[in-house]
Amino acid sequence: CLLRPSQPLQRDHFFLTMTMRFCAVLLISLFGGFLPSVALADDTTTTTTTTTTTTAATTTTTTRANQLIQNTRSSNKVVGEFLDEIGFYQSITVTEDSPIYQARSKYQDIEVHTSHHYGKILVLDGVTQLTERDADAYNEMMAHMPMMEHMEPKRVLVIGGGDGYVVSEVLKHPSVEHVDHVELDEDVIKVCQTHFSWGKAWDDPRVTLHVTDGAAFARNAPKGYYDVIIQDSSDPFGWDEDGNEFELPSAVLYTKEHLENLYQALSSDGVLNFQTDTYNLPHDLEDAKEWREKLLEIGFESSRYGSLSISSYPTGQFGFLLCKKINGSGPNLAEVERRFDDMVERGLSTTYYQPKFQEGAFLLPLWVDKYLYGTHEQKGSKLNMKNEL
Amino acid sequence: CLLRPSQPLQRDHFFLTMTMRFCAVLLISLFGGFLPSVALADDTTTTTTTTTTTTAATTTTTTRANQLIQNTRSSNKVVGEFLDEIGFYQSITVTEDSPIYQARSKYQDIEVHTSHHYGKILVLDGVTQLTERDADAYNEMMAHMPMMEHMEPKRVLVIGGGDGYVVSEVLKHPSVEHVDHVELDEDVIKVCQTHFSWGKAWDDPRVTLHVTDGAAFARNAPKGYYDVIIQDSSDPFGWDEDGNEFELPSAVLYTKEHLENLYQALSSDGVLNFQTDTYNLPHDLEDAKEWREKLLEIGFESSRYGSLSISSYPTGQFGFLLCKKINGSGPNLAEVERRFDDMVERGLSTTYYQPKFQEGAFLLPLWVDKYLYGTHEQKGSKLNMKNEL
Repeated sequence: CLLRPSQPLQRDHFFLTMTMRFCAVLLISLFGGFLPSVALADDTTTTTTTTTTTTAATTTTTTRANQLIQNTRSSNKVVGEFLDEIGFYQSITVTEDSPIYQARSKYQDIEVHTSHHYGKILVLDGVTQLTERDADAYNEMMAHMPMMEHMEPKRVLVIGGGDGYVVSEVLKHPSVEHVDHVELDEDVIKVCQTHFSWGKAWDDPRVTLHVTDGAAFARNAPKGYYDVIIQDSSDPFGWDEDGNEFELPSAVLYTKEHLENLYQALSSDGVLNFQTDTYNLPHDLEDAKEWREKLLEIGFESSRYGSLSISSYPTGQFGFLLCKKINGSGPNLAEVERRFDDMVERGLSTTYYQPKFQEGAFLLPLWVDKYLYGTHEQKGSKLNMKNEL
Repeated sequence: CLLRPSQPLQRDHFFLTMTMRFCAVLLISLFGGFLPSVALADDTTTTTTTTTTTTAATTTTTTRANQLIQNTRSSNKVVGEFLDEIGFYQSITVTEDSPIYQARSKYQDIEVHTSHHYGKILVLDGVTQLTERDADAYNEMMAHMPMMEHMEPKRVLVIGGGDGYVVSEVLKHPSVEHVDHVELDEDVIKVCQTHFSWGKAWDDPRVTLHVTDGAAFARNAPKGYYDVIIQDSSDPFGWDEDGNEFELPSAVLYTKEHLENLYQALSSDGVLNFQTDTYNLPHDLEDAKEWREKLLEIGFESSRYGSLSISSYPTGQFGFLLCKKINGSGPNLAEVERRFDDMVERGLSTTYYQPKFQEGAFLLPLWVDKYLYGTHEQKGSKLNMKNEL
């Protein structure tokens, strides 16, 4: 989810961007390096079926940290991501028996890991998609923000989100009569039905699952049909082992043609929620700005970047573009609160989302505001130059 | 900044808490492990003067990630932190010549590192205090949030914050007549005067620097004198090499007696901003709740947890408790905006803070709200049990 083409139709530009900014995903035995002797280190060698390279290395650490790590660490295995563009790495320690599920579908590598604090973790092609601990942050915001911007959402289209979490949140709204869920990879759905509590979303009679390409589905969708469309897709591009980028299944969901099809498929007061990325990665923020401008060109009257906090995604911050055909349509806060209270009374409360996010999620750091909505450069472009060593 | 005693006067309880939750700080050559041969790995062995243990280890990784890391990584050195309680690690890659400054003061190890994206990084006793890239998030929110909650802040006390950033933000307010800045470690001030742009704060004639213990200063402060007090302190406790905890200089800033002294030193409509930690660490959130309740017991009419986004602090989220002697005192949003516009006109704009945070910073994930202000348990306490493997 951290890779977006800034100019999907200009592949040369895109390739240059990508080579500068990729986030490499690492599944490594991080803490093997902290053990005090070679013999011990050898004992703790870990392998996953995706690992193909084994290397020896010299690692140094402080005595105190070393001591503490040895006393308390529960596992040598982590699921981690490295963001080369900003030199940032983060990882979550997983249990020794991880991954508890691992297979290659027609489209991607699917893994389920377990961890003490974050619970189960779904990993697709090496990228963390969700954890039981904090998947509510992303999925509740992706679902309820657009649903609550519409007066009475009856027909909903969800593209991607094969884990079922967004669909299960959409179904909490009693106005919903029909949900079309379009997911390319049926194996992801099957894995989530087995491993995650929200894997029951598809049992609801209001949901029709379409195992197909989201772009083709949108092209053929009836015009003006949906009140809300939520695009919760995975990365459009990847790289082969020589560092060349290649299209992933989701690439078609990032063309201007596809966005125009989404606009056409929405009713006259329709709302689109479009997954974006973190403002902490300069090129992701660049992309968010470009996508926002494209969405306005296409005809949306408003397109705003909403922010959420989620520690299992690198840098702990993630965003979405909430787009409305008619700016100012939808209920006021009092009405949103009434609908939310009604959900809670029916035993369908959220854990992250609350009604005040309908305004508060769009409150951004000043420099992000100025860059996205103004003509300012990103913060620290001078800092970067100063530090080009 | 990630360690807080939940019961500072009950050391047994505190010790138990700490042993479960410490965040061990690691300065390691993380990416040495990704090189393809032993010979190459040996070539890239890195040392810092704080490292005392050298070990060999076996590391596995995916071919693709390995390839990309080798193509693009600029350094083998990182500054990182491991949060044992949640099995979370994050690091920032620093340049090969890091640290560019390193010394032991009377109280702590002081280091300055450099990095391509985050700029210079100040590290005290192995814990990242600030980076040039995103120190604005923490320091602007610590300073302007309480300043803007007071009608006309004239006299300000800043405890800790030896880097000078909070003081330099406080000075942007034209109503300020006098700032007492209390910092224990003069060497931190000297290092920041040399290495960081906000190290000029102490040249302002309105600032009086007191190199002394903040608790003693507060005990002797004139009653009712300060309009705003900002406590920007470092960790109260550490561990020795046998894993036993010991008091750090800041421990005295976390007793109920000290908080009462702060309350007494504030004017009748005074405002306190008190550094707290992330809600992503269960024990830090527990502490925030306990501190909040203590502050209300002492006499503050309101104490609210404000949130900010900062990727260089582990999990990317951090917080503070904003406490007011009189709930509802202070300017309305229009007046805050007028004062802010005035700052901007005088060329003293912020980069992270904007006036709407006076309300928006207190909008939290629903589960955090329910835990801090209600009687609910933290989210996922059941999740934790389910995953106690």
